[in-house]
Amino acid sequence: MSEKIRYAPPSASAAPRFSGIKTFMRLPHVQTTENIDFAVVGIPFDTGASYKSGARFGPTAIREASSLIRNFNMTFEVKNFEHLSGVDYGEVTVKPGFIHETYAEIEKGLQPLFDAGVVPICLGGDHSITLGELRAAAKKHGPVALVHFDSHLDTWDDYWGMKYTHGTPFRRACEEGLIDTKHSIQVGIRGSQYGPEDVQGSIDLGFEVITANELHRIGIAECIKRIQKRTGDAKVFLTFDIDFVDPSMAPGTGTIEIGGFTGYESLTLVQGLKDTNIIGMDLVEVLPVIDPAGMTAFMAASLVYEVISILAVQKRRN
Amino acid sequence: MSEKIRYAPPSASAAPRFSGIKTFMRLPHVQTTENIDFAVVGIPFDTGASYKSGARFGPTAIREASSLIRNFNMTFEVKNFEHLSGVDYGEVTVKPGFIHETYAEIEKGLQPLFDAGVVPICLGGDHSITLGELRAAAKKHGPVALVHFDSHLDTWDDYWGMKYTHGTPFRRACEEGLIDTKHSIQVGIRGSQYGPEDVQGSIDLGFEVITANELHRIGIAECIKRIQKRTGDAKVFLTFDIDFVDPSMAPGTGTIEIGGFTGYESLTLVQGLKDTNIIGMDLVEVLPVIDPAGMTAFMAASLVYEVISILAVQKRRN
Amino acid sequence: MSEKIRYAPPSASAAPRFSGIKTFMRLPHVQTTENIDFAVVGIPFDTGASYKSGARFGPTAIREASSLIRNFNMTFEVKNFEHLSGVDYGEVTVKPGFIHETYAEIEKGLQPLFDAGVVPICLGGDHSITLGELRAAAKKHGPVALVHFDSHLDTWDDYWGMKYTHGTPFRRACEEGLIDTKHSIQVGIRGSQYGPEDVQGSIDLGFEVITANELHRIGIAECIKRIQKRTGDAKVFLTFDIDFVDPSMAPGTGTIEIGGFTGYESLTLVQGLKDTNIIGMDLVEVLPVIDPAGMTAFMAASLVYEVISILAVQKRRN
Amino acid sequence: MSEKIRYAPPSASAAPRFSGIKTFMRLPHVQTTENIDFAVVGIPFDTGASYKSGARFGPTAIREASSLIRNFNMTFEVKNFEHLSGVDYGEVTVKPGFIHETYAEIEKGLQPLFDAGVVPICLGGDHSITLGELRAAAKKHGPVALVHFDSHLDTWDDYWGMKYTHGTPFRRACEEGLIDTKHSIQVGIRGSQYGPEDVQGSIDLGFEVITANELHRIGIAECIKRIQKRTGDAKVFLTFDIDFVDPSMAPGTGTIEIGGFTGYESLTLVQGLKDTNIIGMDLVEVLPVIDPAGMTAFMAASLVYEVISILAVQKRRN
Amino acid sequence: MSEKIRYAPPSASAAPRFSGIKTFMRLPHVQTTENIDFAVVGIPFDTGASYKSGARFGPTAIREASSLIRNFNMTFEVKNFEHLSGVDYGEVTVKPGFIHETYAEIEKGLQPLFDAGVVPICLGGDHSITLGELRAAAKKHGPVALVHFDSHLDTWDDYWGMKYTHGTPFRRACEEGLIDTKHSIQVGIRGSQYGPEDVQGSIDLGFEVITANELHRIGIAECIKRIQKRTGDAKVFLTFDIDFVDPSMAPGTGTIEIGGFTGYESLTLVQGLKDTNIIGMDLVEVLPVIDPAGMTAFMAASLVYEVISILAVQKRRN
Amino acid sequence: MSEKIRYAPPSASAAPRFSGIKTFMRLPHVQTTENIDFAVVGIPFDTGASYKSGARFGPTAIREASSLIRNFNMTFEVKNFEHLSGVDYGEVTVKPGFIHETYAEIEKGLQPLFDAGVVPICLGGDHSITLGELRAAAKKHGPVALVHFDSHLDTWDDYWGMKYTHGTPFRRACEEGLIDTKHSIQVGIRGSQYGPEDVQGSIDLGFEVITANELHRIGIAECIKRIQKRTGDAKVFLTFDIDFVDPSMAPGTGTIEIGGFTGYESLTLVQGLKDTNIIGMDLVEVLPVIDPAGMTAFMAASLVYEVISILAVQKRRN
Repeated sequence: MSEKIRYAPPSASAAPRFSGIKTFMRLPHVQTTENIDFAVVGIPFDTGASYKSGARFGPTAIREASSLIRNFNMTFEVKNFEHLSGVDYGEVTVKPGFIHETYAEIEKGLQPLFDAGVVPICLGGDHSITLGELRAAAKKHGPVALVHFDSHLDTWDDYWGMKYTHGTPFRRACEEGLIDTKHSIQVGIRGSQYGPEDVQGSIDLGFEVITANELHRIGIAECIKRIQKRTGDAKVFLTFDIDFVDPSMAPGTGTIEIGGFTGYESLTLVQGLKDTNIIGMDLVEVLPVIDPAGMTAFMAASLVYEVISILAVQKRRN
Repeated sequence: MSEKIRYAPPSASAAPRFSGIKTFMRLPHVQTTENIDFAVVGIPFDTGASYKSGARFGPTAIREASSLIRNFNMTFEVKNFEHLSGVDYGEVTVKPGFIHETYAEIEKGLQPLFDAGVVPICLGGDHSITLGELRAAAKKHGPVALVHFDSHLDTWDDYWGMKYTHGTPFRRACEEGLIDTKHSIQVGIRGSQYGPEDVQGSIDLGFEVITANELHRIGIAECIKRIQKRTGDAKVFLTFDIDFVDPSMAPGTGTIEIGGFTGYESLTLVQGLKDTNIIGMDLVEVLPVIDPAGMTAFMAASLVYEVISILAVQKRRN
Repeated sequence: MSEKIRYAPPSASAAPRFSGIKTFMRLPHVQTTENIDFAVVGIPFDTGASYKSGARFGPTAIREASSLIRNFNMTFEVKNFEHLSGVDYGEVTVKPGFIHETYAEIEKGLQPLFDAGVVPICLGGDHSITLGELRAAAKKHGPVALVHFDSHLDTWDDYWGMKYTHGTPFRRACEEGLIDTKHSIQVGIRGSQYGPEDVQGSIDLGFEVITANELHRIGIAECIKRIQKRTGDAKVFLTFDIDFVDPSMAPGTGTIEIGGFTGYESLTLVQGLKDTNIIGMDLVEVLPVIDPAGMTAFMAASLVYEVISILAVQKRRN
Repeated sequence: MSEKIRYAPPSASAAPRFSGIKTFMRLPHVQTTENIDFAVVGIPFDTGASYKSGARFGPTAIREASSLIRNFNMTFEVKNFEHLSGVDYGEVTVKPGFIHETYAEIEKGLQPLFDAGVVPICLGGDHSITLGELRAAAKKHGPVALVHFDSHLDTWDDYWGMKYTHGTPFRRACEEGLIDTKHSIQVGIRGSQYGPEDVQGSIDLGFEVITANELHRIGIAECIKRIQKRTGDAKVFLTFDIDFVDPSMAPGTGTIEIGGFTGYESLTLVQGLKDTNIIGMDLVEVLPVIDPAGMTAFMAASLVYEVISILAVQKRRN
Repeated sequence: MSEKIRYAPPSASAAPRFSGIKTFMRLPHVQTTENIDFAVVGIPFDTGASYKSGARFGPTAIREASSLIRNFNMTFEVKNFEHLSGVDYGEVTVKPGFIHETYAEIEKGLQPLFDAGVVPICLGGDHSITLGELRAAAKKHGPVALVHFDSHLDTWDDYWGMKYTHGTPFRRACEEGLIDTKHSIQVGIRGSQYGPEDVQGSIDLGFEVITANELHRIGIAECIKRIQKRTGDAKVFLTFDIDFVDPSMAPGTGTIEIGGFTGYESLTLVQGLKDTNIIGMDLVEVLPVIDPAGMTAFMAASLVYEVISILAVQKRRN
Repeated sequence: MSEKIRYAPPSASAAPRFSGIKTFMRLPHVQTTENIDFAVVGIPFDTGASYKSGARFGPTAIREASSLIRNFNMTFEVKNFEHLSGVDYGEVTVKPGFIHETYAEIEKGLQPLFDAGVVPICLGGDHSITLGELRAAAKKHGPVALVHFDSHLDTWDDYWGMKYTHGTPFRRACEEGLIDTKHSIQVGIRGSQYGPEDVQGSIDLGFEVITANELHRIGIAECIKRIQKRTGDAKVFLTFDIDFVDPSMAPGTGTIEIGGFTGYESLTLVQGLKDTNIIGMDLVEVLPVIDPAGMTAFMAASLVYEVISILAVQKRRN
């Protein structure tokens, strides 16, 4: 595709990065599925939140923060848009307060992207949105491998008797056959739990689970190997809950847990997916209203940027 | 009742007002309907919010702010708890993300209070909760007169096709026969609208409407007369959306509108209800997370305090 | 023009107002001068600031705040986009730190709009930008009448020996023959001054000056008459420094002054320009980083909205 | 004194107002009692606070905010430092947590100023500090007339059995014979009270009391006359608790009360003291840590500035 | 005690964790010493603060933050309330501004708990409160071993000549014979000092001191061994100053020091006390007013939670 | 010089550290070059900022934060002012918006200090100021070795065609022959880049570059050796951009990058310069307005403090 690359950020040498309408990395805002490798899609839905709400403003904040990001990735030594074309696709229609209607909209909004082989990069929103995304993904790809960074499992069966919340999407997804759990892994689990059945529940569903305690013990490099081994060649949907990152770096989220991972560790971990076949991703649970200096949103934008760079590296390679 | 008054705040001379578990005005937290005149009830539900969410933390913030309030009301020259008994009843169970299930809980939670002749003072939460409250009220009292302070009418038919949001409760309530609109009034309406049908829609439902423009023109004293005339002897449910107050005094709310009313004007207006037969009330739409110095929550607590004082004055009178 | 209206915000009933890429009032982001009546243009430049900086993020914050605004103006009883077509034009290129180079860019950026008879609505940025805007305006229209709401005169000769700052644009503009001072007026001046020569300096340049003290004395209605009389049929450039508004409503600005005007008074004053021939405007000096709950940005958006409504009313009339 | 004026702020045309070590209005920091008319003195003590603490950082915040203020007062048409000499005297030594030891330090710190006929302008700190100030004042001047702007009376007898707090200084001062209550007045009292004995208590001590309710009714101009009549030619100590001002303008204070007065009203009221014989003053209860955008501190600085201007006007007159 | 467990948090599956009156972990608020293993007690006193004040609101903030915590501890694999009974005891009466009177109240308030063999878990408040707690502890247990996590020694002799502040409690406690220093240890000391006599002073009193520099060098695991060896079977009072934790994780405290420990390290360290005989504890110096996103308060709640889990583990073991 | 030490902070035992006019470490504010070893100089200039502005308030915030720091450095076991004399010199005159005029002022302001052999410790301001400082340094010392901690290289050729910004000072300095690049080193570079030519550009200019990725790999101790080897006996100008530190510890800066270094690592690194011949330094890019709890400013003050201690250690040694 290199000869007809179409969509890229404007040059930072033309105008200050802080100027212009705020799209992700200042990409063109175009609703197309043609001639693009990826599309950034906002899903401003936070009805699934069990504690602090406000993730509906996540996409806007992540976009604003992302304007600081430049095109060349030092770690991978890649100029992303020499190899990639991508757009800010805008936002999926959501129905605040109505999760089923919103799931239908998410599915409808993302299907054309998956169908066209475009990688959707979804900005949440709370973690309940991933169920809608997985429905669209699975329709195209069948059950997908889930790489899930989070401090929570989100495989509970219900919250206060309610089956659809940001604490339950992956159990629902398993029930609906959307996840290939034997190639899936949950990383970073920590904090207090309801009971021993929490982690066991995920394992029973077929997930591999690496808790934060374990990750602190084995280290990032070993964890990357575990993920690589687990996912193999599977089609992977990456779901990153910003509360995986330690609250010292990412305080702006709804259900913080102590004992997470630094920004450096988190970036390194995502960089470790450079050979993974990522067919879609989301970054969820950024709450701008409690985000001092916009640091959480910038952390989120930086994580997304690493995934874009991985797509560029993979494209360059091919 | 003075001989058997049971529930009142502790003396402020015993311990600093900032100390102790945070109930409203440091009232005892007891779930009783006996020997009380009013009960403060938190309804921490914000799934109905169409813009900024976060009102689920409203009750906690209003309670904290209220600890600053003392027992004697200068305007009415009344020591509230010489005449009243009241409790902090705690909170109604809510189901975040699920409005119908929550309505059922609100109704179930408040019914015993209405049935016992206790005045529930509900702390929201977004404005969608009022529909649940009115269902309980009407079950006991039949259709009630609504005195509604707000910058918005909240009588829209739907939002994005959804019938149950914080912008629609009073249309739903009218449809359900819960409101005696001919004795009801909406005061303070301002800001941009969807169309001329907005205000007309309320009028068609039978409400009297005093817009902010009109209120600025006629003044607080005249407005009080209009409210008194409108409500007469009817059983009144008072619903106060904090965005009635000007954003300069109450920035901590989800859908601010320019051109509101000062704290003094707002208190004066509520004091004007001193002869009104208030059978229940709520104070909604406080968003603590965007409330600098807790000023909005304190405004809210102060408005509730005036209503409590009105109850005291009426009790003293009888 | 009603048969070929082209650009308007999306329906608020389709998707929540908080969703979507953040343009002003969610208008389409198109860089056209055709088939439009007005264009919102960001000028994110704050190098002219003499005290607190940060207005470079003003346009983004005002756009975000404006998404709350609906299409129908109650005061004028007008559905704006039944009569108007308008776009979010994006942003003028700025050169942070380099005022002359930026002036050239502002002039270049706005000229096509003025030339096409489109009303540019500029979002600052600090007040130094107005000089660039006036250069473009005067090129098309000759010297324009200035209606200037502000707590400061901005007609000083220099700051620390520097001739081009946000405290000097109107003296420079007079020197360059861009302003028809005999139809121009400065309203709201207050706060401490360098000396009596400050106000006298404006008067000597030919401006009428209404200080805040005088405005508090004569009232808004009388002030409107004075402005109408002063401007008559002249082509008016409206420049609104948000610090005209009282800090209680607009704390998010760089050089606040005590004793300003409420949101209601400010809106009313702008509404008083409904018969004025406005050929361009700006709204400057919003500093989002010190703007609790976004109240200042929303105040700014609401003032701009009134001007858009005036354009609609005038269009309807013709 | 004009021939030997010694201490004044640097010219604002030499360097930006935001630059330099932060003294009040950028006055020289000199501990002298010679050749000066007034001395600004910080008293960073907040051990007397009954609710929110943090006023110990008030002086620093007010100094920082004051750097925005210019030398010429428009209302009085006076260039302050053509007539006055003044310094930032620094701060009185305080002993956090130990009120009696601190009172001794305040007295010791201020005595030389009072003795030299210099007007001390004290920046608090909580309101408990005024007792120390009055002890020093009375030693020089005998009992002084108190002009007291506040939402609270601060004449309670004790708090939780403690006699020395920020709620009790004026009762203590009366008991110690420091106040000439028959020429003293308390203005702005509002909010909830402990009982009717609160206001009556002040009256019994000999104070005239104008509540906020009354002040809203009679207006600022009438209030000024009442103060003038009350104080006559007496030597006046002015004590201004920032919570007199409405929370919309002054949220950054420890015990806010709804229904206060605007910045314009507050400045006007202080300007009304232009013929009053002010021998000392303080401005207390600014809590920077809850002061969005520094608006409360700037309100405080502006009030102090008006008093300095009054001193200048009186000096010019003589 | 397992057969008659009485007090535990409500099920999180019944109602959202954010709802309800805010007690610690939503425990019942009961003032009993019977049938409980521990009691959470607020001591909202900050008069001892030498720098930033505000810790009086610490208990309220920690309680609010704690509502996020669930019952099962992953590290210890224990369901706390299957083994424990505990209450939120409310708050000790404090006399703001009066440290000796407050010490008397603390002692009076805690004595019944110590006497009943209940572990008091005190939420400060500044570090001066620990002296009062130790007085009560020693009355029951004799001199206790102190395990003290902090960036400061708090064994200075005086501050500005004052003997009772938050910088001096442990010297006073030693003088009063309340501490068994030969089994006591201070961990985490860092930042600038007054002189070499600071650390030497603690050593001279008999404490073992592990500075932050040393702790960074030896690591958490080795430190745990040192603590275990030091304390042995002694009755331990654990005092945790939140400024032990690095400011990146716990900025909301009054005297921050650079170079502290992560949340993970801090939790691990406390978990290392699982075999220690803890007879009481406090967690002090949380200042909510400067705590972005409530992260410091949540850190504090999480540390307390680990201690509760230790109590559960020890109970299970027996 | 020990026999005639003249300038040192007041004793912390005399008055609380939070009291007094806010100079750095409460040093005397004297503009002298005699009898001093170092002078702290504010340079409140932020016109060079390419993204978030606000560093003009950096010096004031760092001064305020520094009042918490005590005289004895535990790591070096040195009482700084037993060996050193130093002052807060105040601030260089700046011309906001005009970089060349400001450079002239910086040079003029610092020259006397360099000429007198005093070490200037400059508090920025944005990084553009360093060019002015280096001009003054080189005039006295010839080309200096640069030790540069930063996440950015700041050796770009231009920004939007502009040659003088905070992203270009070191290229300009090289062109002007101010830097001895063969003894210079840049440490901590990370984040997204414009291209591979960024790092290569620095290397081509002669700098050694240690990226953050490399530093994470080799560790702090090895990095210190590399710096020592690189600088040798050269005269070193130390320039520390606070964004070297991880955003979790230093969020208050204009262009944050993920993956930085902890406070402990940063302090340790600076301590590693204890044998370096530092002839001047600056600490830049602190933006107080986005600095929660003042943590970034305190980090900055603590880094400066380590350099002062190094000067003391070196003085003691001689």
